[in-house]
Amino acid sequence: MSEKIPYKIYLTENELPDSWYNVRADMKNKPAPLINPGTHKPCTADELKPVFCEELVKQELNDTDAYIPIPDGIREFYRMYRPSPLIRAYCLEKKLGTPAKIYYKFEGNNTSGSHKLNSAIAQAYYAKEQGLKGVTTETGAGQWGTAMSMACSYFDLDCQVYMVKVSYEQKPFRREVMRTYGAKVTPSPSDTTEVGRKILSEFPETGGSLGCAISEAVEAAVTQEGYRYVLGSVLSQVVLHQSVIGLEAMAAMDKYGIKPDVIIGCAGGGSNLGGLMSPFVGRKLRGEADYQFIAVEPASCPSLTRGSYLYDFCDTGHVCPLAKMYTLGSEFMPSPNHAGGLRYHGMSSILSQLYHDKILQARSVEQTAVFAAAEQFARVEGILPAPESSHAIKVAIDEAMECKKTGEAKTILFGLTGTGYFDMYAYKAYNEGTMTDYIPTDEDIAKALKNVPKV
Amino acid sequence: MSEKIPYKIYLTENELPDSWYNVRADMKNKPAPLINPGTHKPCTADELKPVFCEELVKQELNDTDAYIPIPDGIREFYRMYRPSPLIRAYCLEKKLGTPAKIYYKFEGNNTSGSHKLNSAIAQAYYAKEQGLKGVTTETGAGQWGTAMSMACSYFDLDCQVYMVKVSYEQKPFRREVMRTYGAKVTPSPSDTTEVGRKILSEFPETGGSLGCAISEAVEAAVTQEGYRYVLGSVLSQVVLHQSVIGLEAMAAMDKYGIKPDVIIGCAGGGSNLGGLMSPFVGRKLRGEADYQFIAVEPASCPSLTRGSYLYDFCDTGHVCPLAKMYTLGSEFMPSPNHAGGLRYHGMSSILSQLYHDKILQARSVEQTAVFAAAEQFARVEGILPAPESSHAIKVAIDEAMECKKTGEAKTILFGLTGTGYFDMYAYKAYNEGTMTDYIPTDEDIAKALKNVPKV
Repeated sequence: MSEKIPYKIYLTENELPDSWYNVRADMKNKPAPLINPGTHKPCTADELKPVFCEELVKQELNDTDAYIPIPDGIREFYRMYRPSPLIRAYCLEKKLGTPAKIYYKFEGNNTSGSHKLNSAIAQAYYAKEQGLKGVTTETGAGQWGTAMSMACSYFDLDCQVYMVKVSYEQKPFRREVMRTYGAKVTPSPSDTTEVGRKILSEFPETGGSLGCAISEAVEAAVTQEGYRYVLGSVLSQVVLHQSVIGLEAMAAMDKYGIKPDVIIGCAGGGSNLGGLMSPFVGRKLRGEADYQFIAVEPASCPSLTRGSYLYDFCDTGHVCPLAKMYTLGSEFMPSPNHAGGLRYHGMSSILSQLYHDKILQARSVEQTAVFAAAEQFARVEGILPAPESSHAIKVAIDEAMECKKTGEAKTILFGLTGTGYFDMYAYKAYNEGTMTDYIPTDEDIAKALKNVPKV
Repeated sequence: MSEKIPYKIYLTENELPDSWYNVRADMKNKPAPLINPGTHKPCTADELKPVFCEELVKQELNDTDAYIPIPDGIREFYRMYRPSPLIRAYCLEKKLGTPAKIYYKFEGNNTSGSHKLNSAIAQAYYAKEQGLKGVTTETGAGQWGTAMSMACSYFDLDCQVYMVKVSYEQKPFRREVMRTYGAKVTPSPSDTTEVGRKILSEFPETGGSLGCAISEAVEAAVTQEGYRYVLGSVLSQVVLHQSVIGLEAMAAMDKYGIKPDVIIGCAGGGSNLGGLMSPFVGRKLRGEADYQFIAVEPASCPSLTRGSYLYDFCDTGHVCPLAKMYTLGSEFMPSPNHAGGLRYHGMSSILSQLYHDKILQARSVEQTAVFAAAEQFARVEGILPAPESSHAIKVAIDEAMECKKTGEAKTILFGLTGTGYFDMYAYKAYNEGTMTDYIPTDEDIAKALKNVPKV
C-alpha cells in the first residue's frame, strides 16, 4: 500500500467490533480455573453468582467460545468514544532517529482517562440487565473507579467505590470526578465493613492496599440486597471486554497492510495488554502470523519477572476465590515511593499462562526511567501519558533505539492506556529530581510469598 | 441524506483546512484598529514588531485577505490532534427529551485540554521561523500557558509564562504540566519586571490579574534580546488561527448536509467563539445562509452584555496598544469566587464589532447554573467539560429545552472548548454546595470604567 499512513487511523463507527474475542478459546493450555479457597475445587457458576453478575460469571467461565457478541446497549456507549485512534508516532520516530515504525493505540480519549471504561460499561450493563440496584468496587490509582462511576451514572446504577486510603488522600481530584458522576467514595480500609474494621484494628496507621479494598468491596456486595461486585482487571472477563482494543488495532492495521513485529503493553493485572494482544495472540496460536509480545511491569512490583506461578489469594482479606497466577504473594506491598497503578501482587491467569508457555515475554523497568520516557514522549507526541502507560512507552523507545543500532525497521505497536492529568504529583517529583527508584529484595518477595495457600 | 449521522464525525487528515479564514475580509464594518496609546493613531507594523513576531503583525493588520494559507509546519502539528471530532449529542438529546439536534465541536482532545493549542502552535511556528530564542506570555486559568508550553517544546523555543498568582497557587498541577513541557513559570505580579515590582509595591497582597500578567509578559519580551510576546485571545490573529475550528465544523456539517440554526460559544476574550463562528459569519455576511450566533459570558464578567463599546487599555500596566471593544474597564476584576477563565475585562474587536452590528447576540449566565449544566452533560455525554466550555453547554441546553416547549427541531452547534481535569476544586465546591454566584453592581462597573482613556 503506497498511500501515506495518516497520523491517526480512525475506524468508522460501523467498523466497531460487534463481538469481543475470547483468546482462551484458542489457547491449547487453558488458564487454570479459579478455585474455591475451602474445597480447592474449581469455582462453579453458583458459587460465583452471589458475588458477580450472572452474565459475567458465564463469561468468566467460558473458555471455549472465541467470539462473544457485544450487546447493542454497550456498543451504543462505545460509540461515544470508540473506535479509539491508532496513532503513528511520526514525531517520536523522527526525534529518536530510528528506522522503526512506532504505532500506539490511544485509550485516553475519554473522561475516565483510560481503557478501563471498556470493561466498566460492560459490567454496568449486565448489572442493569440483571435488575440490580448497584455495584461495589475498589480503586487504587483511580482510573477504574472513575470509569465505573461514569458507567453507573449512564445506567442510573448506584456505585460504591472503596478507594485505597493513600490514593484517596493524595488524589482528591480523582475522588471529585467520581463524585461528579454520582459515586460514593470511601477510603479503604474503612469501618463500614468487617474486614476493614479488622485490618484497621491490626494496622491503624495503614494507607491501605488494593487487596484490602477488594476485600471490603466484595463484603459490601454480598451483604447488601441487589448489589454485586465488579473488578477492573485480573479477571478473564475483563481481558475479554478489553479485546475491543486489540480488535480495533488489528482492523486498523490490516486496513493499511501494516503488520506489527513487536506488541508492547504495561501490565499490572493484565487488562490492557491482555486486551491489546488477544486477537494477535489468537493469530499466533492459530499459526497465521508471528509476533513478539512484551509485558512491561514496574521493577517495584515485578509479578511476572520475579513472582512465582501458583495458586494465590486475589485479595488481602482472603474472601475471594484463589487464582493460579504469577504472584508476589497477597501480602506484597510495593514501596510507598511507587507512583501510579501497576501495584497488584498478581497477574491475570490468561497472561500468566501465556507467559508460562513463553508466548509472552516480560520486562521490568524503574520509574525514573519511565518518567524520562514519558516526558520525552509528551514533548514530541503532545499527549501527557499516565505513569502506567509510560512503562510501555519506555520499552517501545528501547526497542526503537535497538533498531537504530541494528538498522532493522521493525514495526512496534504499544498500548497507550491513558492520560496523566491526575498524576501531576508524580510528574512534579520527577521534574524536581526527588523521584526515587525501588527494587524489592529477594527477601521481601520470599516473605510476602510465605502466606500463599497450600493447594 | 438518509444515512444515520454517526456520534462522531471525523474528517480525514486530508480534509484538514489548508488555509485559515479571515472573517474581517467579509466584514463591511471592519473591526476598529489597534491604536497607539500616545498618539491615538492606528498602530503601524513597525510599532508592533518589537512586541509581536513579524508574520503575526502582518496577520493582525490584514483585514482584506479572506484566506491565509496554513504553513506546512503548522499543519504537520495539527495532524497530531486535528481534525477534531464534531459530536452529535444523542445521549444529551435523549436525556432532555428535546426535538432539537445538538452538535458540539470538541477541542479538548489534546494535552493542553483546550482549543488554545490551535493558535499556540501557529505563534510558536512564526517565532521559530523568525529565528527567535523564545516567547513570553501570560496565563490565567492555565490552558493558554499549557498550550504555549507544548508548542514551544515542539519547536525547541524557550517559553516564559507569567501565571496569575492566585491561579499559580490554586492550580499547582497546571504549573507542573507546563514545567513538564519545559516552560519557566513565574507567579504574577513578580519582582522580575518593573511593572510587576510597581504593582507589588502598591498592592503587596494582590493575587494578580490577567491584565497585570500581560503587562509583565510584554515587558519581559521587549527587554530580552530574541524574544517576542504571544497572546492566546482577544487579538484578531488568534481569531484567525482559531477559524480552523469553524472550517472543520462547517466541512463536517456540509458533508452530512446538516445546517446549524444556532451557533453557541463561550466568550472570554473571544478566541474560541470567534474561531467557531467565523466561516459561518462569512456565509451570513455574503448572504449565503442565515444563523443565530450566541456568545455566552459569565454574569460575573459580562463584557458584552454590560460593558461599553469604546477604546480601552488591553492590560493593567497600560503598556499595550488600545483596542476598541466592549469593555468593563481595565481595572475590572471578577469576584474571587469566579471559577475558571472567561475573566478578561474586554472582548475581541472582531466579536465586539459583530455584536455592535447585531450579527452576534450575547447572554450572561451564573456559575452554579453553569456547573449544573456541566454535570448533566458529563453524566450522559461522558466528557468532563471545562468550566469555560460549560457556559456554552448551559445555553445549548436552554435552547434545546425551549425547543421542547415549542416543538421546534432546531439544529444547535456549540463549541466544547476543553476539559475540566484541572478544575476539580471548582467541581468540588459545586458538589459540596459551597459554590456561590456573583453579579457585579452597576457601581462596580462604572468605577472600573473611570480609567478608560479619552480617545
